[in-house]
Amino acid sequence: MRILIVGASGTIGRAVVGKLEKHHEVICAGRSSGDVFVDITSVDSIQAMYEKVGKVDAVVSATGKAHFGPLSELTPELNGIGIESKLKGQIHLVLAGMDYVNDGGSFTLTTGIMMDDPILQGASAAMANGGVKAFVKAAAIELPRGIRINSVSPNVIQESLDKYGAFFPGFEAVPVQRVALAYQKSIEGAQTGQNYEVY
Amino acid sequence: MRILIVGASGTIGRAVVGKLEKHHEVICAGRSSGDVFVDITSVDSIQAMYEKVGKVDAVVSATGKAHFGPLSELTPELNGIGIESKLKGQIHLVLAGMDYVNDGGSFTLTTGIMMDDPILQGASAAMANGGVKAFVKAAAIELPRGIRINSVSPNVIQESLDKYGAFFPGFEAVPVQRVALAYQKSIEGAQTGQNYEVY
Ligand SMILES: NC(=O)c1ccc[n+]([C@@H]2O[C@H](COP(=O)([O-])OP(=O)(O)OC[C@H]3O[C@@H](n4cnc5c(N)ncnc54)[C@H](OP(=O)(O)O)[C@@H]3O)[C@@H](O)[C@H]2O)c1
Ligand SMILES: NC(=O)c1ccc[n+]([C@@H]2O[C@H](COP(=O)([O-])OP(=O)(O)OC[C@H]3O[C@@H](n4cnc5c(N)ncnc54)[C@H](OP(=O)(O)O)[C@@H]3O)[C@@H](O)[C@H]2O)c1
Repeated sequence: MRILIVGASGTIGRAVVGKLEKHHEVICAGRSSGDVFVDITSVDSIQAMYEKVGKVDAVVSATGKAHFGPLSELTPELNGIGIESKLKGQIHLVLAGMDYVNDGGSFTLTTGIMMDDPILQGASAAMANGGVKAFVKAAAIELPRGIRINSVSPNVIQESLDKYGAFFPGFEAVPVQRVALAYQKSIEGAQTGQNYEVY
Repeated sequence: MRILIVGASGTIGRAVVGKLEKHHEVICAGRSSGDVFVDITSVDSIQAMYEKVGKVDAVVSATGKAHFGPLSELTPELNGIGIESKLKGQIHLVLAGMDYVNDGGSFTLTTGIMMDDPILQGASAAMANGGVKAFVKAAAIELPRGIRINSVSPNVIQESLDKYGAFFPGFEAVPVQRVALAYQKSIEGAQTGQNYEVY
């Protein structure tokens, strides 16, 4: 398969690339690194990426930012970060990408555990994750030509504990290799409309 | 209790007002009708509404638009309707309203069944609903002063079948009175972080 991975240089992205590149042609995309550059907060940039890359069998989004901070300090602007990036950014990858995915291909997006198991300072990220999860479930019944769509919802990742560990006290961090398996299941399997919980 | 109902003139809003006004002081808000006008897609308008209304014990949002249409025709602009109104509009009612809700008071937002039981043409609305549901669950653990937050997720409503029936073939429409009960449970009960499914 020809697989486009957005966010390929990240903690999750690198593991997904590692898992897939033995058996597939992998195209790496990122904001400042990779085979092709893209800013998912810009519809034009997404469109330009697909024009450059052409037809693919799978699109993976292993990216998407959201603001972490106390609810009492959450402003519309700070909440907008997750809306523009993790929510709209990932959905626009699907809307603009539909015509570039071959028959029977797939989209795999990324959510996260805090929508199911809330953490302090996580309301805005939970919102973005919940929006993506529901979109995936609903879009699955409408995608044309056998195209599938799933999301992967990782727990906090062992390899990211330096960055995020303080937000997840008592959470049983998972190795990024377990998370990468869920992307592989989405791409090489046949399910659609799923949110794979790697908890 | 002193209860602010945004969207009070709507199908759901009218039923909620009817259920609550016997035992509570109800303040009706809407874009073009009610005791106070508000446009939930404008942060300034929401702020002005709260300044006019002052302290309340409960805020109900029985409003929020989203675009219904085929996924293949969903543009970022059309998807933006649900993001600006049903998702951000309702969340901004919470962010701006926190300081106006008395100790132990509550927010009750509105989602909808298509995030759980997808319909054709419903991906954008499902996305908005899923975002609101996840925000509610996460915000519940952070709201100060015993303030609670829930959402109500109605099935298609019998009284709205003229408008929405064609989108919901085979769905068992519910009477709006059943839906109004869930808002009452949220306001007069003590639960928080719930999404009441009226299915
Ligand atoms: N790590 C965890 O513990 C964890 C747990 C649950 C969920 N998640 C979610 O998984 C996703 C990836 O997390 P991660 O920890 O792997 O991220 P990360 O290590 O910070 O990597 C982010 C990746 O996304 C790219 N990127 C950043 N902004 C972008 C933009 N605007 N447009 C396009 N690409 C952009 C980066 O590329 P450049 O370096 O080129 O900018 C990088 O490749 C996020 O949505 C995160 O919320 C992570
Ligand atoms: N009806 C159903 O079958 C059903 C099922 C599931 C979920 N829902 C959800 O429940 C909510 C209410 O539905 P409904 O059928 O009761 O709606 P509705 O009858 O169309 O009434 C909408 C209400 O919201 C107000 N409104 C519209 N735009 C507004 C804005 N920008 N700012 C502030 N207020 C605004 C309207 O006020 P004005 O008249 O003054 O403009 C009216 O009071 C919606 O989110 C809908 O998706 C409905």
